[in-house]
Amino acid sequence: MLKVPEHQVAGHQASDGKLGPLIDDSGRFYKPLQNGERGSREVAFYTKFSSNAKVPDHIRRYFPVFYGTQLLEASDGSGLHPHIILQDLVSTRVYPSVMDIKIGSRTWYPQAPEDYVQKCLKKDRECTSLSLGFRICGLQTYESEESGFWKPDKKRLQSFNLEDVRSSLWRFISSNPSSDSEPGCSYASVVYGGSKGILAQLLELKAWFEDQTSFQFNSCSVLMIYEKKTAEAGVSSAEVKLVDFAHVVHDQGVIDHNFLGGFCSLMKFVSEILASPVDK
Amino acid sequence: MLKVPEHQVAGHQASDGKLGPLIDDSGRFYKPLQNGERGSREVAFYTKFSSNAKVPDHIRRYFPVFYGTQLLEASDGSGLHPHIILQDLVSTRVYPSVMDIKIGSRTWYPQAPEDYVQKCLKKDRECTSLSLGFRICGLQTYESEESGFWKPDKKRLQSFNLEDVRSSLWRFISSNPSSDSEPGCSYASVVYGGSKGILAQLLELKAWFEDQTSFQFNSCSVLMIYEKKTAEAGVSSAEVKLVDFAHVVHDQGVIDHNFLGGFCSLMKFVSEILASPVDK
Repeated sequence: MLKVPEHQVAGHQASDGKLGPLIDDSGRFYKPLQNGERGSREVAFYTKFSSNAKVPDHIRRYFPVFYGTQLLEASDGSGLHPHIILQDLVSTRVYPSVMDIKIGSRTWYPQAPEDYVQKCLKKDRECTSLSLGFRICGLQTYESEESGFWKPDKKRLQSFNLEDVRSSLWRFISSNPSSDSEPGCSYASVVYGGSKGILAQLLELKAWFEDQTSFQFNSCSVLMIYEKKTAEAGVSSAEVKLVDFAHVVHDQGVIDHNFLGGFCSLMKFVSEILASPVDK
Repeated sequence: MLKVPEHQVAGHQASDGKLGPLIDDSGRFYKPLQNGERGSREVAFYTKFSSNAKVPDHIRRYFPVFYGTQLLEASDGSGLHPHIILQDLVSTRVYPSVMDIKIGSRTWYPQAPEDYVQKCLKKDRECTSLSLGFRICGLQTYESEESGFWKPDKKRLQSFNLEDVRSSLWRFISSNPSSDSEPGCSYASVVYGGSKGILAQLLELKAWFEDQTSFQFNSCSVLMIYEKKTAEAGVSSAEVKLVDFAHVVHDQGVIDHNFLGGFCSLMKFVSEILASPVDK
């Protein structure tokens, strides 16, 4: 029995009878193939990535498990549509806090058609992609039983500037952000810090990006996921995952410098929060 | 007594009665201020950089020493013109091999006027900047007493593709490149490798770029300099320097992800040469 995912923060959504991803109860995520080359490129990526012996296991765990493709009834009622079957990254979570960050100051790529280049370039210049090397595309963070999740809408996210990005990365790991009288202590050290935290995982990925020339991850996102309930107990349940591979290009003989630069910029924001005296 | 520098590989040149930099016999380099904001921005950079207490000494050595500005007779005979006085980076060299590499897949910056953005964007897409994250702007490498320097002209450099970049980085450190019968052994391990080699210096700079948010080095170049004579004797005389700061922007609250990405891409090319079996 397929259903609409509850904790999707960005991308096309299957609610309101539109075409979007579905999930099942066994931890699988069914993503409808996008039109034209996007869909086929995403399948090609997962296929090549799965069989690429050069990718070390400690890197593979940062990517959703790929189970192939399948024709399924589309969520918009349009009939059978090919879907990519992936691991549902939040199936084991209760109240997952999730941030979707599109990496790269440039979301287009040299081989793209000119109209696509111009569209992306305009968007990159209008948001933080160009200046910061990344943009927050989606975000939800669990705040309390009373208020539930803080989930800024798409329009708000598109208007984010540097300070909004910084404060969102703070609020993402704050314990009591909605109270004015009490600023709330933060879970920075348990979520972003530590040997199993977000920054440690980003560092591991960074080392791979400094070396690998097999994939150019144009317009791909980093997901940061954690569970506030376990953070409250001092236990890190933070995970970094890479998603959205509809614009990946292969074997250009060069590292993905565009991704790496934006990725390091994101790491610096996270490091600054960890180094901040507020958390000490 | 000022004269035209003998080993300048890129940028405006004072030969043929044009406006360009001059040198003296005491190791100083006199660079005419560029028109408009470029000149004032370059002076502003050197002034701020010199007085910025956050810049560690081990990083400062990668920049030319700045001695202030001075009105001097311009090389084009147009009369007095303000010059930036810098360290002449090759004054102690006899036959310096020099490569000038403009770093960044994007040479424009968000604050720039639109016509400048479009001009740079077009150029970046036509050369290797966009694809590799850097482009070789100038290069000379000493080959032998008979043939002197190999110094491809500007037009040739502008047409460089990935393979040209790779082979130039090889030829830059080859001992006998012009002989067909003998491929020549390479000085990779002594010039690019080792604790004092190019790669070690790039690594040190990289760590700083991962952290510093004071400067955005738009359209700035890395110079790689060494002396083939000392490399022949197994002695590294390799130096990395950063030059050309007419487009530096200050205090954007973010690392220079555009520079860092291209810089890491260059490092990967150098690493690959060092890891190549030819050199072992």
